[in-house]
Amino acid sequence: MKEVSGGVCAPKGFRAGGIWCGVKASSRKRDLALIYSEKACTAAAVFTTNKVKAACVLLSQEHVSRGKLRAIIVNSGNANACTGEQGKAAARKMAELAADLFAISPKEVAVASTGVIGVAFPIGVIENSIEALGNSLSGDEAGHAAALEAIMTTDTRKKDGAVELEIAGKTVRLGAMVKGAGMVHPNMATVLGFITTDLAISRELLDQALRRSTDRSFNRVTVDGDTSTNDTLIIMASGEAGNAPITTEGADYELFEKALESLCISLASKMARDGEGATKLVTVTVSGAVDEAAAETLAKSVASSSLVKAAIFGADANWGRALCALGYSGAEFNPNETDISFVGAGAEVKVCSGGAFFPFSEEEAKKILSGEEIEIRISAGKGSGSATAWGCDLTYDYVKINGDYRS
Amino acid sequence: MKEVSGGVCAPKGFRAGGIWCGVKASSRKRDLALIYSEKACTAAAVFTTNKVKAACVLLSQEHVSRGKLRAIIVNSGNANACTGEQGKAAARKMAELAADLFAISPKEVAVASTGVIGVAFPIGVIENSIEALGNSLSGDEAGHAAALEAIMTTDTRKKDGAVELEIAGKTVRLGAMVKGAGMVHPNMATVLGFITTDLAISRELLDQALRRSTDRSFNRVTVDGDTSTNDTLIIMASGEAGNAPITTEGADYELFEKALESLCISLASKMARDGEGATKLVTVTVSGAVDEAAAETLAKSVASSSLVKAAIFGADANWGRALCALGYSGAEFNPNETDISFVGAGAEVKVCSGGAFFPFSEEEAKKILSGEEIEIRISAGKGSGSATAWGCDLTYDYVKINGDYRS
Repeated sequence: MKEVSGGVCAPKGFRAGGIWCGVKASSRKRDLALIYSEKACTAAAVFTTNKVKAACVLLSQEHVSRGKLRAIIVNSGNANACTGEQGKAAARKMAELAADLFAISPKEVAVASTGVIGVAFPIGVIENSIEALGNSLSGDEAGHAAALEAIMTTDTRKKDGAVELEIAGKTVRLGAMVKGAGMVHPNMATVLGFITTDLAISRELLDQALRRSTDRSFNRVTVDGDTSTNDTLIIMASGEAGNAPITTEGADYELFEKALESLCISLASKMARDGEGATKLVTVTVSGAVDEAAAETLAKSVASSSLVKAAIFGADANWGRALCALGYSGAEFNPNETDISFVGAGAEVKVCSGGAFFPFSEEEAKKILSGEEIEIRISAGKGSGSATAWGCDLTYDYVKINGDYRS
Repeated sequence: MKEVSGGVCAPKGFRAGGIWCGVKASSRKRDLALIYSEKACTAAAVFTTNKVKAACVLLSQEHVSRGKLRAIIVNSGNANACTGEQGKAAARKMAELAADLFAISPKEVAVASTGVIGVAFPIGVIENSIEALGNSLSGDEAGHAAALEAIMTTDTRKKDGAVELEIAGKTVRLGAMVKGAGMVHPNMATVLGFITTDLAISRELLDQALRRSTDRSFNRVTVDGDTSTNDTLIIMASGEAGNAPITTEGADYELFEKALESLCISLASKMARDGEGATKLVTVTVSGAVDEAAAETLAKSVASSSLVKAAIFGADANWGRALCALGYSGAEFNPNETDISFVGAGAEVKVCSGGAFFPFSEEEAKKILSGEEIEIRISAGKGSGSATAWGCDLTYDYVKINGDYRS
């Protein structure tokens, strides 16, 4: 498997584009994106588990349930959440506008929105710019880059990627883009993510691969503990790679699932690193747990702790907070068998052994914690369960960004 | 029921005191407290649900399980958590040192600690100062005040109170002190709290009254989502009021439970107001839920949301985040029947009706949200369940305080 350029346009059959249409009224940053496939794609998706779902999520759930998509239209600047009947009509209109560009059915279009909640949705500005959006499409890196820019809100870094590998004797590609900075928490897919592939695969296996990959990547990222109303992760498979469609599990399916999982993990860690206000990526690895589920719960609890996150921001080796977070996670483990190390910059400092303090050099620990990528390595017993979760530090800028988001 | 002075010394039979002994090595602030009863008290307590429990918690659980206490010794500056065998021995030694002052059994002494986790416990400085601690005891406001000061860590305000009422024809008093600023979250009692009363009451009813009051007060306060290793709330009843002991439920018991609940709610809201770095008290009231448990879950979810808390800090009427937090709480409710208002400074501004935006004056909302006490009033349907939760805003100072706590 190798990395390639082109993002969502890297797989055969896809074009993408993005423009500024005015949903973001106070800036000229791109705010409207389109991803389009020449042929009908097999599609699968995961959506937010929040009971309060944005209008676009409700619509896309309905459309994706058919298993086929041709296009995804996305805006940033307004989440179309808590917008009542007006919002529902606007989401339908967005699908229709995109469908009309290609004379396809609105049911073949997924809609996603991100931005402020509870503000009337400005469908008019999208209608006015729909032709320009269609004209912005291209099948190269530029089209991908324009679409990616248009889905970003408080993101400060681009989170995308594409890979190429051989499956069933054919060259297959996967491409992806995600946005997500705040409101990122385990057990919701992610904020917004779009993945393309030219593999031919059945709906059932595409869905399974997406869910398994999400569980081990986006569902293990936490930024602030809030689960958004808009989380949407959609995968479209064009079949243009020319392989005989994968319809049963086996070596070919495994290759695809591993590639998808690897791509998702790469994007998930980038998302944590780009948490709102974050200055550091915090990777929490737990081994020795009774099983993978316990390891996951333990790792997420540490990565989610406001106190751990603030200590990491301050480069303070306050490991007791990590042990404390393990303790209230609800997962089974033995505190008296727990070891903790801080790892980074090629060094490892053990700070806790058997649940009690272990003499360590504050200077060495400070050096590790002052880096931009820090691992909290935890051995929680003698079991075989292990898991990784990704988070970030809690900073002044998180508070600043979220204290005045609407303005 | 009327408020009286004297705190934990207000009820008959209690003395208290506090000194600096050196657990807080870098300051001369009081760090060692003692509460003592002339007679054996009926006692009950609630402790942290964290699997990682401080040595003092394990010891106090054992001692309180006997149902009788004479004294509580408390230090701040070191939590005696994650301190292994050394910590367990130190906690036992603390109980012995206090017991020796009065020639009582160590089993009649509860021990509580608060402060940094995972640092060897300096029992020596306590041993050196135990006589001075005994000499600091007094049965007046001054004794209470010295003890209260000695249990505080990052607290910026005193959280105490005392009330007097007639029960069973006798004048009965209750007095209390609590500390707690960070690591305050629902479903752990509080950080540290000590309550005295001169009522005569059975162990079973004292325990029941404490648990019910805690559920409706300290268990509904959230500061940062972290559950401490040290939470301890102890009540001692001296029986000195001279009433015939309350041994069955009825009007007398009800009077006591209500008084205790009222005192606990008053302290719980003070605790939220004094959350680390907090500038505002946020009270979340939910009515119309299917039952009280659902209302409580909904209220706590909004009060705990980092995004809601940051918006309140910024006086930003971003009500969609509150609706979003209701949505991911896990409690049953109908978003389409949900109304939200911001209330404060004698005004109320409705911002959400039936789950969608409701036209409101940004200026009026800003005025309310700029106050120091804000209510988020939520009607979540047509049910009869209601509950209140208390929280605070998320500020730069929270990050600052917790980024460098150990230094």
